[in-house]
Amino acid sequence: MQQLTNNITFISKLEACWQRDNFVCVGLDSDYEQLPDIIKGGRPVEDGLFHFNREIIDATHDLVCAYKPNAAFYEALGEAGWRALAGTVRYMREMYPQIPVILDAKRADIGSTNLGYAQSAFDYLGVDAITVHPYLGREALAPFLARKEKGIIVLVKTSNPGAGEFQDLPVGPQQEPLYMVVARHVAHDWNGNGNCAIVVGATYPDELRRVRALAGDMPILIPGIGAQGGEVASTVKAGQDSRGWGMIINASRSIIFASRGSDFAVSARAATGQLRAEINQYR
Amino acid sequence: MQQLTNNITFISKLEACWQRDNFVCVGLDSDYEQLPDIIKGGRPVEDGLFHFNREIIDATHDLVCAYKPNAAFYEALGEAGWRALAGTVRYMREMYPQIPVILDAKRADIGSTNLGYAQSAFDYLGVDAITVHPYLGREALAPFLARKEKGIIVLVKTSNPGAGEFQDLPVGPQQEPLYMVVARHVAHDWNGNGNCAIVVGATYPDELRRVRALAGDMPILIPGIGAQGGEVASTVKAGQDSRGWGMIINASRSIIFASRGSDFAVSARAATGQLRAEINQYR
Repeated sequence: MQQLTNNITFISKLEACWQRDNFVCVGLDSDYEQLPDIIKGGRPVEDGLFHFNREIIDATHDLVCAYKPNAAFYEALGEAGWRALAGTVRYMREMYPQIPVILDAKRADIGSTNLGYAQSAFDYLGVDAITVHPYLGREALAPFLARKEKGIIVLVKTSNPGAGEFQDLPVGPQQEPLYMVVARHVAHDWNGNGNCAIVVGATYPDELRRVRALAGDMPILIPGIGAQGGEVASTVKAGQDSRGWGMIINASRSIIFASRGSDFAVSARAATGQLRAEINQYR
Repeated sequence: MQQLTNNITFISKLEACWQRDNFVCVGLDSDYEQLPDIIKGGRPVEDGLFHFNREIIDATHDLVCAYKPNAAFYEALGEAGWRALAGTVRYMREMYPQIPVILDAKRADIGSTNLGYAQSAFDYLGVDAITVHPYLGREALAPFLARKEKGIIVLVKTSNPGAGEFQDLPVGPQQEPLYMVVARHVAHDWNGNGNCAIVVGATYPDELRRVRALAGDMPILIPGIGAQGGEVASTVKAGQDSRGWGMIINASRSIIFASRGSDFAVSARAATGQLRAEINQYR
């Protein structure tokens, strides 16, 4: 019973995946325009999206620690995209309930409004975790942080080239970069329910090392491997925690679009396996 | 022809509304649970939401400078909520094309992903403006900023009590608060297309005055009047620009839920008219 209860939280699902040496998160950034022709032909948009995701998931589920659909690629298609996203999450929960699903939605509003976003992600879709912006502070994020069984993954140092415009600004008498201040607040003040995690891009390994030193064994979601240019060796060295765990290393396009032919799912599995092996080589 | 072309941009629609002394923005935070019984009875959820919004809009359209549906209240209902939101925006565009519609979605991801959010808001839904988080910087927001005819409304100082946790942090050798640094970047660096605006909460009139002094005649979306406790007199004194314009003063609950009886639309009109008069009294 204890085991069962533990395994329904985001963090316990993650840890069970890490125990099997799985640190790859597959980003389901399923841009409809980019899908293989074999998927798009003769199907309504939402069926094509769902079918593509299902094939990717079925081909990779034993190699990953999480799936991460990015809401933007579904919202771009309006109602049909929303249905495809809901169907994909439902499929993952039914077939692979042991694998956590992260909704990469980068939400954050004032407190009363975040209730709506928390309901949408956790109750309507039923995902295990969500990414959020820190800018409005802990008080605004309370409706997310109150969900003990879920993962609240806060943007700290993002993977994009222009991330430093605000995130590197020197703050306070110590002139410490803003992203470190945010990381400290999350790790030392927001995590009363043990459900917080942090985003640091693989494109910034030095910053990743600093955040890891501050955050203890808190999970870090690390996007930016593959198409964005982040390197595996430096990412693992900087990102692993005291147990050699702690990393949710996301790759999206380099896995789901490894091939645009009829072998797209087999190719996605090969790309996932290769990244998995590379990560474990440097741990 | 020039007039017609001008009037299709967010800023020109706004200015035309301001010319008629309209500065109230009605926040369509249409939380389904809170809707009047007369609306909810015997209707599917999405029909109820749409019907409620339509009644509010029909009753207030000649008194406002914008409508602002907050995405969270629609996403909380999943697919049905999404359809109600799309239907509401379609109705506003058809019936009242002169009034700008702001999607309060507080989005922001890395650049390639923001394309999806921009498509969702501007092309699929067809709104005139969107609210965005600044944390990822200008480079990431490029797909929004490139849409010259739209409004890109950046969170600077939000209305919530805990806004200061990061937004007031002292930055750089001048120890200037972060929200002022963000405001300066938006006003002086991001606004090449003249399509930027700024969010400052009515709950922080001193901060509003400082941002106005820095931002020239840039539009400022000012939430926090009414239920959140912001005062009209101090808001108008601090928020108006050199023309006595520049303000998008949002009220949500105090207007749309002014009555929960069958007179909800008439009451919403009365509350809008009262706020409109109060604003103009202090300009």
